[in-house]
Amino acid sequence: MPVKAHSRDYKVVSTDDHVVEPPDVWQSRLPSHLAERGPKIVSTEDADVWEIAGSRHPISGLAAMAGRSFEEYTPKALHFADMRPGCYDPAARLEDMDLDGVDAEVMFGTIAGLAGGTFIELAEKEEELALECVRAYNDWLATEWCATDPERLIAQAILPLWDSGLAAEEVERAVEIGHRGVLVPAIPQAFGLPPLADPVYAPVLDACQAAGVPVALHIGGSIARKQAAELIGGLTPGAGVPAETIVALTPLGNFGVFANVIFSGIPVRHPGLKIVSVESGIGWVPYFLERMDWTYTRHRFWTKSALTEPPSTYFRRQMYATFLVDDSGIEAIERIGAENVMWESDYPHTDTTWPKSQELIEEHLGGLPDAIRHAVLAGNAVRVYGLGS
Amino acid sequence: MPVKAHSRDYKVVSTDDHVVEPPDVWQSRLPSHLAERGPKIVSTEDADVWEIAGSRHPISGLAAMAGRSFEEYTPKALHFADMRPGCYDPAARLEDMDLDGVDAEVMFGTIAGLAGGTFIELAEKEEELALECVRAYNDWLATEWCATDPERLIAQAILPLWDSGLAAEEVERAVEIGHRGVLVPAIPQAFGLPPLADPVYAPVLDACQAAGVPVALHIGGSIARKQAAELIGGLTPGAGVPAETIVALTPLGNFGVFANVIFSGIPVRHPGLKIVSVESGIGWVPYFLERMDWTYTRHRFWTKSALTEPPSTYFRRQMYATFLVDDSGIEAIERIGAENVMWESDYPHTDTTWPKSQELIEEHLGGLPDAIRHAVLAGNAVRVYGLGS
Repeated sequence: MPVKAHSRDYKVVSTDDHVVEPPDVWQSRLPSHLAERGPKIVSTEDADVWEIAGSRHPISGLAAMAGRSFEEYTPKALHFADMRPGCYDPAARLEDMDLDGVDAEVMFGTIAGLAGGTFIELAEKEEELALECVRAYNDWLATEWCATDPERLIAQAILPLWDSGLAAEEVERAVEIGHRGVLVPAIPQAFGLPPLADPVYAPVLDACQAAGVPVALHIGGSIARKQAAELIGGLTPGAGVPAETIVALTPLGNFGVFANVIFSGIPVRHPGLKIVSVESGIGWVPYFLERMDWTYTRHRFWTKSALTEPPSTYFRRQMYATFLVDDSGIEAIERIGAENVMWESDYPHTDTTWPKSQELIEEHLGGLPDAIRHAVLAGNAVRVYGLGS
Repeated sequence: MPVKAHSRDYKVVSTDDHVVEPPDVWQSRLPSHLAERGPKIVSTEDADVWEIAGSRHPISGLAAMAGRSFEEYTPKALHFADMRPGCYDPAARLEDMDLDGVDAEVMFGTIAGLAGGTFIELAEKEEELALECVRAYNDWLATEWCATDPERLIAQAILPLWDSGLAAEEVERAVEIGHRGVLVPAIPQAFGLPPLADPVYAPVLDACQAAGVPVALHIGGSIARKQAAELIGGLTPGAGVPAETIVALTPLGNFGVFANVIFSGIPVRHPGLKIVSVESGIGWVPYFLERMDWTYTRHRFWTKSALTEPPSTYFRRQMYATFLVDDSGIEAIERIGAENVMWESDYPHTDTTWPKSQELIEEHLGGLPDAIRHAVLAGNAVRVYGLGS
C-alpha cells in the first residue's frame, strides 16, 4: 500500500527505533511448504524464544528494556508479556510516542537482525526459505505494522543480499509497498559475503539511488557473528574484555565502516546515494572528517586514491549520522554539518531516551539556534526519508 | 648512565618520534654465540634490509620520509644513504630538531617495532636471542643514541613481555640506565600473549608505577600481525579495503584499547600508573569520555562493573593522548582536560610536522591561552616523563 501524500508538520522524528516482531509475522505469511521451518515462537518457562529452521534464537532482554530502570536491565530473554506492549504492538507504540512527544519513528528489526542478518545467515543453507522470510518481513512491516499510521511509523526493508539481483528487485518491490529506507549489514564479510565496496552490490546501490531511499548502516553490523552472539546472547565476553567495553565501542564501529565506504569510492560511483550511520553517535565525526582529509592530502599519491575530492566533501554531500545524547557532537555541529545529523530515540533498547526525550532534548539541544535544532530533530529526516511526500 | 639533574627551559617537547636503528646496534652488542642470528643489515641493489634469525625484514620507506614531498612518499624499502641522516644519526637529529624549534623528542623504534614486537615475536622460537636483542636495544638507545644529549633525546625501553618477571626486571634496569618511558604493545594478543588486562602483567605495571615512568601504547599495536605486515610491507591491502582506510583508521585503534584499559580495571588496580595513547590524535577523546561515562551510568549494574568512578575520572587522573594537528580536539580541549594532551612531531614518519612544526603550531594552537598552550607543547610532557629531574 503506497503511502499517501500528506502535510504533517513533523517536529520530532526519531531515526532509529525497533520493532520486536510479534509471533505471527512469518507463520501467517510463509508458503505452507516452508512454514514448519520458518520462524516461530516456542514458549518456555523462562522466555518466548524464536525457533528458525530447527535452531533456537533467544532474544536478549536488552532489546526490550523501555520503561525499566537501569538497575533492572538484564540480558536474559523475556516473555512477550514481560515487555512493554509498545515493543510489538503498533497501536501501543503510537501511544508511547505520544507520551514522549515523538511524531515519527524509523524502524529496524529485532529477530530479523539489525540489517536482516538472520536471513542472510539462513540463506547459506536454506535459500528459498530465507528469501521468503525476507519478503514476509517486508510485507508485514510496511502493510501491517507501519500501515497502522504510515505518517508516523516509517518502514525500512531488509534484503536478500546474498544475491544482488534479487536484492535490487526487493528494493524496488519494497519501495512500491511503502518502505522508505533499506537496511544493509555494515560489514557483509561478517556473513561470508563480499565487502560493501565490491562492485557486485552496484545494482543494489543503484536501485536505492534511483528510488531515492537511503541505505542505513546500523551499528553492530561491524561485529563479527561470534562477537554479536556473545553480546546479544548476554554471554560473558572473552577474558580481558568486559561487556562494558563492547557496549562502549559498538557505535564507533561505524567510523571504520564509513571511512571505507568513502575511500573505496562508493560515493564517487553512486553520487546520489544517501547513506546513514545509525546509532553511531556524532561526537567522533569532526575528528573523522579531519583525519580522513589529512590522510587524503598526504597519502593519495602513493595509495592511488579512488577519490577526486577530499573525503569530507562526500560525507557532507550524501551521508548522515544519528545520535541520542551527544554533547561533544552538538558542540561541534558546525564542523560536522548541521544538515548531516539526525536525532534518534532507540526505543525500546537500553540506550533509549524514552520516556524522557523532551527533557533530554531540552537539556542537550536547548542551546542550538532554532533552525539547526529543527533540522536535527526533524527537517533532515523529512528530507532523507522523503516524509510528507 | 643516569641522566643528570638540569634546569633546561623546555618550550616544545615532541612526545612521539622514531629512531631508525643504525646497522651496528645488535652486531656490536650481542654475545658472540648469538650474533650470527641477531639483526644485521644485508644490502641489496634496492635497499638495506634487516635480516633476523634467517628472515628478511624490509622496512617500509614510509617510516623515513622526513624531508620529502607528499608526492614522493613511497612504501618501497630504502638504503640508509637515501634517508635523511637525522633518521639514524643522533647528532644530525639534534640539528634537525634545531631547524624545527623542537627542544626534546621522546623515542620509539623502527625495526625493533613500535613496542618491541619484533623481539616478542622472535621469542616464540629463540627466546635467549630475543631477550639479548631487547637488552641490546635498550642499552644502545639510552647509553649511546640518547646519551648524545639526554636532555633532548628521551629514551623509552622495550620489554621481554613474554615473561612478566623478566619484563619487570627490565623496567628497573632500563630506568637505571636513563630510560624515561616503557613501550608495551597495545594488543598483546596480536603476538599470542594474554591481553593487557590480564593479571599476569601486574608486576610489569607495578614496576612502571613504582619507577614513575609512563607506559606508552603506540597506535598500530592494535593491528594484528598480518595486517601490520601488509601495511608496513607496502603490500596491497585486501580487496575492498584501500590503504587510505588503514592509514585513516590506525590512530583510532587506541579508542578501543583505552576503553578496555579502563573498563578492565587497570587504573583501579594501578592508580598511580601513567598511560599514554601515542599518535592517536585527540579529537575523538571528548566523544570517548562521554560515551564511556554513558555506558557506565546505564550498564554498570548488569555488567558488574570493575569501576567505582565514572571512566572519565580515571582518564583525567592518569592518562594522556598525543597529537600532531588536530583542530577538532584543540577546539574541545576543555572537554578532554588540558593536562592530558601532549603535542608530537612524529619525525621521520609520513605524518611528521617537520620541518614546519613552528608554522603548524602557530596556525593550529595559536588561539589557545598561553598557559594551556605551554602545557600542551611542553609542560605536560615535562611532568609525565620527569624531564629536568
